Amino acid sequence: MHAVLDSVASPGQSTRLRAFLDERAPATPCLVVDLDVVRTNYHAMRAALPEATIFYAVKANPAPEVVAALAAEGSSFDVASTGEIDLCLAQGADPESLSYGNPIKKAADIAYAYRRGVRRYTFDSDGDLANLAEHAPGSRVWCRFLVDAPQSGTPFGKKFGCAPEMALRLLARAADLGLVVDGACFHVGSQHTDAAAWTSGIAEAGRIARGLAEAGVATRSLNLGGGFPASYRDAAPPLAVHAEAIRTAVAEHFDTAPELVVEPGRAIVATAGVIRAEVVLVSRKSDHDEHRWVYLDIGRYSGLAETENEYIAYRLRTAHPPTPDGPVIIAGPTCDGDDVIYQNTPYRLPTALRAGDHVDILDAGAYTASYSSVSFNGFPPLPTLFVG
Amino acid sequence: MHAVLDSVASPGQSTRLRAFLDERAPATPCLVVDLDVVRTNYHAMRAALPEATIFYAVKANPAPEVVAALAAEGSSFDVASTGEIDLCLAQGADPESLSYGNPIKKAADIAYAYRRGVRRYTFDSDGDLANLAEHAPGSRVWCRFLVDAPQSGTPFGKKFGCAPEMALRLLARAADLGLVVDGACFHVGSQHTDAAAWTSGIAEAGRIARGLAEAGVATRSLNLGGGFPASYRDAAPPLAVHAEAIRTAVAEHFDTAPELVVEPGRAIVATAGVIRAEVVLVSRKSDHDEHRWVYLDIGRYSGLAETENEYIAYRLRTAHPPTPDGPVIIAGPTCDGDDVIYQNTPYRLPTALRAGDHVDILDAGAYTASYSSVSFNGFPPLPTLFVG
Repeated sequence: MHAVLDSVASPGQSTRLRAFLDERAPATPCLVVDLDVVRTNYHAMRAALPEATIFYAVKANPAPEVVAALAAEGSSFDVASTGEIDLCLAQGADPESLSYGNPIKKAADIAYAYRRGVRRYTFDSDGDLANLAEHAPGSRVWCRFLVDAPQSGTPFGKKFGCAPEMALRLLARAADLGLVVDGACFHVGSQHTDAAAWTSGIAEAGRIARGLAEAGVATRSLNLGGGFPASYRDAAPPLAVHAEAIRTAVAEHFDTAPELVVEPGRAIVATAGVIRAEVVLVSRKSDHDEHRWVYLDIGRYSGLAETENEYIAYRLRTAHPPTPDGPVIIAGPTCDGDDVIYQNTPYRLPTALRAGDHVDILDAGAYTASYSSVSFNGFPPLPTLFVG
Repeated sequence: MHAVLDSVASPGQSTRLRAFLDERAPATPCLVVDLDVVRTNYHAMRAALPEATIFYAVKANPAPEVVAALAAEGSSFDVASTGEIDLCLAQGADPESLSYGNPIKKAADIAYAYRRGVRRYTFDSDGDLANLAEHAPGSRVWCRFLVDAPQSGTPFGKKFGCAPEMALRLLARAADLGLVVDGACFHVGSQHTDAAAWTSGIAEAGRIARGLAEAGVATRSLNLGGGFPASYRDAAPPLAVHAEAIRTAVAEHFDTAPELVVEPGRAIVATAGVIRAEVVLVSRKSDHDEHRWVYLDIGRYSGLAETENEYIAYRLRTAHPPTPDGPVIIAGPTCDGDDVIYQNTPYRLPTALRAGDHVDILDAGAYTASYSSVSFNGFPPLPTLFVG
């Protein structure tokens, strides 16, 4: 059974954000992001994998302030749509630093990206490859192949990537079509806590690179995708462990070291954000129930989308002493039965908790505000404030 | 195995919306709502249950045009938030026609609703009841109790309502606190296709009413909530079947017929809407796969939230002849592995289907546009167009 913990992975920024929230007392719910932590996390990733180029996965937190801060630090950007391309360019990113990493693209969107100067693309199908050859001639391309990654916190299933032997065929075809073959790409799945996950993907990528070399097609880089985890209620292994696993596998499976590319999102922004919510109601379903229901003014449709199936178990903090406490079910404010945050994951909150008290949701800088619904049940989207 | 069907429940409006889409060719994805169908559905509900007052559940489709059309027809409104109160009043609804049906309310929001003239509220806890007594004195109240409704398409779980014996205690307390006790309230769960579901709830409501009468507290109405189903790929029983089940159970379990209140949402707007989407990509994961992956420019984060766990299986229509066809997995456009629409529910689409073709998602007027994320992956929210 987990108790309510204060931040352990990032005690400094947590304290700073808490002070900001206590002093400013903004309307709830809100997300506060510390841009200094974003910068610190970016440089920690660079230090852990100095041989890799970092393409920040904009989808994790597309706030213009975050993108601008990372552009100023020299980051490159992994974008998923023309909207994200426009966003990055408006925040000062060089089009050369953008990679259009979504293998699902309309032909018109490829043409738009190319007009805006984007010259790196990921694909995983014949159809997208043909569109790239037509609308983004001469660009650099990665082909994404499928890996099994059952240990991912939020597994990708089979939506992205193709079979490795098909990736080999497609990359050879890409060369024939006049595209610049960068190499293979895979993604272990978001919030991946098992460093060994990289090994099989890198081994497969090595086989693809050798197959291409035998076909006379040179490759230059290996795109490892994202998936680097953040610590939530369960601590994740430090970046260094993942870096070492990657380094070892690359040395084993590649004759010539490829340039490395990583696409972290969560690992850059998760610990930079805290959501402050308010308790709307504390109730029991019968006069005999042990569990209290704690309803917050934020839920699955206003920012906590990653609590679907209770995938991400955030650390929570209240202004009360952690004990005495008791078991709770935590839910959002909408008239929607699915808007329950945690009912299977055991959570305990202080018995002193009352309506009107605040609850801080820690390490919530990734995959929160941008998931908010526009107006479900008449509740507005989650706003973001910035410090740093 | 289901084939691709054209609309059977609503062939007229489907044809009209299709003509509109084909002539105007709006940018995709978009939702088009036929306001005449909204009006027709409202009057069909009135005809099926003439003894009931209809409070349209605004959350199902909160487009101002829909609210205005229903207000003009004389509908009352079930609102879930202060945002929905403002919306309804701005569209001409009388504050007396509003019921604040969300049992999870901040004290400040109750006070706001009361200031704006709202005099009907639903609660299910001691805390909310105390706030109502303080901030909405003299208002009419329903207490929501928990029913088991395993046949619901999207079951509510236990998020709303309290144990029936607790509802009895709370309603007696409400009378002591100077509130006007309307009676009990329950909800069988959204998209409920088993008409027998009403029976046990009505029986329980009858016991609560008798218990209150014995305690000297008169009740006047029974709020049956929503849950009236729409026909999707699987046809739902007609309204008349539900109405008959309700009528029979009320006659059996109430000595004096209570006023009836219903809160339909889906049943009013689902068949009024069609989403037009575009095929972004058709691909296979290996050169030997039977299944094609069909990626649309709409997904779970831009309007198809009710395909979570594949709860709602929409009917799909393309411009191609339905056969020859083949099995497909259908997914959305984002870089998110969970943005898969149907992979366990067997769907077949024409083998002629290509990128750039459109796919119409039928009977999609409920619980779609308002669920859209603000900007996930840089994709804009689903726009709504109107005819009628």
